[in-house]
Amino acid sequence: MSKLTDVPKRILIGRALRSDRLGETLLPKRVALPVFASDPLSSVAYAPGEVLLVLSIAGVSAYHFSPWIAVAVVVLMFTVVASYRQNVRAYPSGGGDYEVANTNLGRRAGLTVASALLVDYVLTVAVSISAGIENLGSAIPFVVEHKLLCAVAAIVLLTLMNLRGVKESGKLFAIPTYVFVGAVFLMLLWGAFRGLVLGEDMNAPTADFEIKPEHGGLAGFALVFLLLRAFSSGCAALTGVEAISNGVPAFRRPKSKNAATTLAMMGLLAVTMFCGIIALAMATDVKMAERPAQDLFLDGSPVGADYVQHPVISQVAAAVFGDGTFLFVILAVATALVLFLAANTAYNGFPLLGSILAQDRYLPRQLHTRGDRLAFSNGIVLLAGAAALLVWIYAADSTRLIQLYIVGVFVSFTLSQTGMVRHWNRLLRTERDQAKRRHMIRSRAINAFGAFFTGVVLVVVLVTKFSHGAWVALLGMVIFYVTMSAIRRHYDRVAEEISAPEGPTDDTVRPSRVHSIVLVSKVHKPTLRAVAYAKLMRSDTLEAVSINVDPDETRALREEWERRGITVPLKVLDSPYREITRPIIEYVKGLRRDSPRDAVSVIIPEYVVGHWYEHILHNQSALRLKGRLLFTPGVMVTSVPYQLESSEAARKRARRRADWSAPGMVRRGPVEKRTKQSAGRAGGRAEDGGGSGNDA
Amino acid sequence: MSKLTDVPKRILIGRALRSDRLGETLLPKRVALPVFASDPLSSVAYAPGEVLLVLSIAGVSAYHFSPWIAVAVVVLMFTVVASYRQNVRAYPSGGGDYEVANTNLGRRAGLTVASALLVDYVLTVAVSISAGIENLGSAIPFVVEHKLLCAVAAIVLLTLMNLRGVKESGKLFAIPTYVFVGAVFLMLLWGAFRGLVLGEDMNAPTADFEIKPEHGGLAGFALVFLLLRAFSSGCAALTGVEAISNGVPAFRRPKSKNAATTLAMMGLLAVTMFCGIIALAMATDVKMAERPAQDLFLDGSPVGADYVQHPVISQVAAAVFGDGTFLFVILAVATALVLFLAANTAYNGFPLLGSILAQDRYLPRQLHTRGDRLAFSNGIVLLAGAAALLVWIYAADSTRLIQLYIVGVFVSFTLSQTGMVRHWNRLLRTERDQAKRRHMIRSRAINAFGAFFTGVVLVVVLVTKFSHGAWVALLGMVIFYVTMSAIRRHYDRVAEEISAPEGPTDDTVRPSRVHSIVLVSKVHKPTLRAVAYAKLMRSDTLEAVSINVDPDETRALREEWERRGITVPLKVLDSPYREITRPIIEYVKGLRRDSPRDAVSVIIPEYVVGHWYEHILHNQSALRLKGRLLFTPGVMVTSVPYQLESSEAARKRARRRADWSAPGMVRRGPVEKRTKQSAGRAGGRAEDGGGSGNDA
Repeated sequence: MSKLTDVPKRILIGRALRSDRLGETLLPKRVALPVFASDPLSSVAYAPGEVLLVLSIAGVSAYHFSPWIAVAVVVLMFTVVASYRQNVRAYPSGGGDYEVANTNLGRRAGLTVASALLVDYVLTVAVSISAGIENLGSAIPFVVEHKLLCAVAAIVLLTLMNLRGVKESGKLFAIPTYVFVGAVFLMLLWGAFRGLVLGEDMNAPTADFEIKPEHGGLAGFALVFLLLRAFSSGCAALTGVEAISNGVPAFRRPKSKNAATTLAMMGLLAVTMFCGIIALAMATDVKMAERPAQDLFLDGSPVGADYVQHPVISQVAAAVFGDGTFLFVILAVATALVLFLAANTAYNGFPLLGSILAQDRYLPRQLHTRGDRLAFSNGIVLLAGAAALLVWIYAADSTRLIQLYIVGVFVSFTLSQTGMVRHWNRLLRTERDQAKRRHMIRSRAINAFGAFFTGVVLVVVLVTKFSHGAWVALLGMVIFYVTMSAIRRHYDRVAEEISAPEGPTDDTVRPSRVHSIVLVSKVHKPTLRAVAYAKLMRSDTLEAVSINVDPDETRALREEWERRGITVPLKVLDSPYREITRPIIEYVKGLRRDSPRDAVSVIIPEYVVGHWYEHILHNQSALRLKGRLLFTPGVMVTSVPYQLESSEAARKRARRRADWSAPGMVRRGPVEKRTKQSAGRAGGRAEDGGGSGNDA
Repeated sequence: MSKLTDVPKRILIGRALRSDRLGETLLPKRVALPVFASDPLSSVAYAPGEVLLVLSIAGVSAYHFSPWIAVAVVVLMFTVVASYRQNVRAYPSGGGDYEVANTNLGRRAGLTVASALLVDYVLTVAVSISAGIENLGSAIPFVVEHKLLCAVAAIVLLTLMNLRGVKESGKLFAIPTYVFVGAVFLMLLWGAFRGLVLGEDMNAPTADFEIKPEHGGLAGFALVFLLLRAFSSGCAALTGVEAISNGVPAFRRPKSKNAATTLAMMGLLAVTMFCGIIALAMATDVKMAERPAQDLFLDGSPVGADYVQHPVISQVAAAVFGDGTFLFVILAVATALVLFLAANTAYNGFPLLGSILAQDRYLPRQLHTRGDRLAFSNGIVLLAGAAALLVWIYAADSTRLIQLYIVGVFVSFTLSQTGMVRHWNRLLRTERDQAKRRHMIRSRAINAFGAFFTGVVLVVVLVTKFSHGAWVALLGMVIFYVTMSAIRRHYDRVAEEISAPEGPTDDTVRPSRVHSIVLVSKVHKPTLRAVAYAKLMRSDTLEAVSINVDPDETRALREEWERRGITVPLKVLDSPYREITRPIIEYVKGLRRDSPRDAVSVIIPEYVVGHWYEHILHNQSALRLKGRLLFTPGVMVTSVPYQLESSEAARKRARRRADWSAPGMVRRGPVEKRTKQSAGRAGGRAEDGGGSGNDA
């Protein structure tokens, strides 16, 4: 299984491996499940608690509604899983919600989904890290005492790991995920055994607490609203379900079928764990409150600001296994690890989505290159920065962060499912095979129901959560949307500006002759090389140009020029202010004025050095000069590099960087496959036009 | 007088003004005095107080030693002024301490002085701003209540003004300086009149305070040590005296004579003010303590932490003019303004010294260009950052900052004067004219005494102040010294590596043929221009190369290429991973392998855009590709720019930037003059060798 992770890298470097051997690198279901399910499964660590929290507003009596809310969440989960099983079958390329919405509903819908997903990734990190810290804190008090610090430290750690490019392996995901699932099921079974068979009375640490309802005796509309809010919170259990639909290419054949099966397995596991935890929480009398300090009472007095409200899963574990026991600690640590893995998936997903958006020119084109380290790093740092900011603003409180979380998820659910309905409609228009048509109609029905249900949930979430923080997520989406639209407009405008007219090319872009000038300051190897290269180019005229910043040096240069018998004429430009750039620019402009139809080629000897601090010491004037020359029409600028010995270090570094493989390779599947598919995708968008030259 | 400031700028831009007209722009003595003397004169605002502070450690009885300390400071001041009058005569080019030490004592001494001066500039800003805030605070309580905030705000303001390039005028300096000097003399005269003629009893606000001596009844060595410490603190009055020696070229003819006269005037003014303030402080019973909160007592109880100890000058003004009167406020504001001007001189001096050091290759070569905005900005930001850090660490407490200040000043005094002795020795070796010899021997005696005296003071300062903060200044000097030595070593090593061997140039740098490749991604105007230019260059072979990141796009490109009948053959390189850089690098390497003696010319069409955010959206891949190509031997890289419409904005910005004139022009004198002189200087250092190509 460890080979699994090396292979994508070997492909990237060695290029010897062809698609017939790629089979080995694909994920079997037993590995795919943990790789893709850490995000959705980890959400059962906080979703049940959120339901109880909201219900507590109406007092502990409202806890009796929790099974009904669990049922609603289960129905929703089955709906979403069933819907995404259709996606997986229809888009074996691993389309993902963005592609589905973009292809079927148009650019605006696609961009909306993309904005929602980008916000979602940020929140996945913020929520998962915060919840992970809270779970770890139930076993290690230090962690919860320094919650914000630990949460930020965890983000920094994950960020550094991802920036360095940790090799990802199935094992890395498999062990904590299976330990977590195993421990939860053990807890559920052992709890059921103790409660139902042995008839023991298990008590959560908060069993003796009382809840002072914020709004006691709610009824009618207010109660319904509260139940809807609780349901919205419970929907946090659904986050991350869509991940598999992005990762179909990583599955073993039959890809779609395996992915669909894995989805179903994941849904079943999540639902069982979610319901089981709620049931045990009821059985062990867990009490949670939105504002524990003032609403939780022990022996008639409020617990106060020092009280730390532990997550439901850890309270249940304390009741079933006993607080601080070996199994309790194992579960707490595994929960935290799975939550951190869930956060890590966002680190992989964010740059990948960025590269897809860059391909559609919604983001800078350079993000387009797959697994490019620099682009990847920028994405990672942006993600980590935004997540850390949220964690800091919300003091690493997962409950408050979750209010922001669910909007984005359901925006993309709804639009993606709506897109799928369109997809089936389009296929049905041409499909004549009755068996296939029946199948499509069935799929369409599932997706339509999915779109409807998730749409309703989206409205419920928006209504119940808006003032609790959902507006922040919406604002984030709007910012992403506006920025990406602006970038796209810019690229479109440039594409139009530079598009070449038909027919024979314009005269203005075709000069008749070329004057070359080589810049020299001293006679040394870089200069000699530049002069030699300049001579090779056989331009119409060639002269060497030097700036006289110091008469003595200039005299020495002229003497050595003659002594060495260099055949290129040397021209000296005066510069009483020791400037370099201005005299050259003016000279070049003068040449252009004298013969406007000619081009000027400026040849600059440049040092190549190996260390960043050497960059500061060299070539700054050359760089600035080049920058200015580029604004001068009719000029081309040639660098003739001279590699200093120290440049070897940089060459090695560059090679290392090129060989670097981006995290998240495992879940994206082999490169070869994806490229073909993305080419297919690009074909469908040929009408987008233009593109932008060397930016590609 | 306002023309004064415009002219240097007109010279820089217009270039019509020749040296025969430059006379007008030179400074008459009445303007030169405020321009150069704001730094040394402003130090009388804090130096007298520092003397009293230190003496207070031995109790108020030790105040009686203050006249003796004043005498010692006066003697030292006369010595230093007399010494620098010799410098000014010997180095009419405005050599400054660095040049004197470098020329006469060698590189190490020069570098030591340079390090000391750099530290000194940082401390000038920190001390002057802090003292300015304290003086302003004696009139405006808000300022002293938010001392650190105001001090940092003042630094930020000065920095922004200098970064923007404020037009400096003689007026700017003249008004506050003359107001300050006038107000101080008015205070001295009025105080003398009230005290001696009217026989009134003037009381400072702290006249009734008592001082609890930290070490009462000091005697013997301990007392001597304390007196030496007080003397060291009083030496703060000498900071900035050397400024005129850098600015001789800015004076009207006879330059040296006028500069020497101005120096003498400045010395006289400073000494009178210094002694007068100390005398008035004695007469009005000013009490100051190092730790006022615990050592100052009023009616038997300590004044406590809330007590604000105002500067001596403001306490004396309160006694003479009355607290809060018009003249009191005028003096406080003028004192603060002069101190801010003193800080401002460091903003001018720091980049200038940087450019001189860059010329000697102790700092990056690009700082060399005089008045270059970018280099200037870097210097300014470095200076402001270091000063703000010190102000922050020392809570804008001028007393604590002064402990660091004096070391650097006396290091450069001592080394500069020692250098002058060597200078006269050298001249005396060849001079035969007896009159001149006598003159030189006299000058040498003055400088020798100056060197001796300042050397003794340096030792005293080091011994008495080391643990009080002088070690910080020394550490700063060591850091500058080591960094600059390392930079110089690097440049020397590179110069050696690239020096061209004699005789016919090496075969390895002279390739025989050149293959050109134009990179294309789409057929648009930038590509067509690049192809047209490439054809002009008539290299041995020419082909267009495209990277196949998307088969459909590549097919479209190939079709359009043929349809338009572009005669350059198009080669497509495969890139299954959507990489751009690697396939091109490998292709180029392949070309080099096939014919190692040939050069490869890579021609890249580039967009030129106008806004920074557009840079993010364009050319990133091209930039990175160029970066990698430069490491590949035997390659030259040509950019063919295509100016988009938006590039007009950047062109205008670049022009504005080029027309910018650096602050501090007034005090440096006309550009034309300086250049010739610096050329003369450079001639003397021709043995330094190498230099570094296009870095100049």
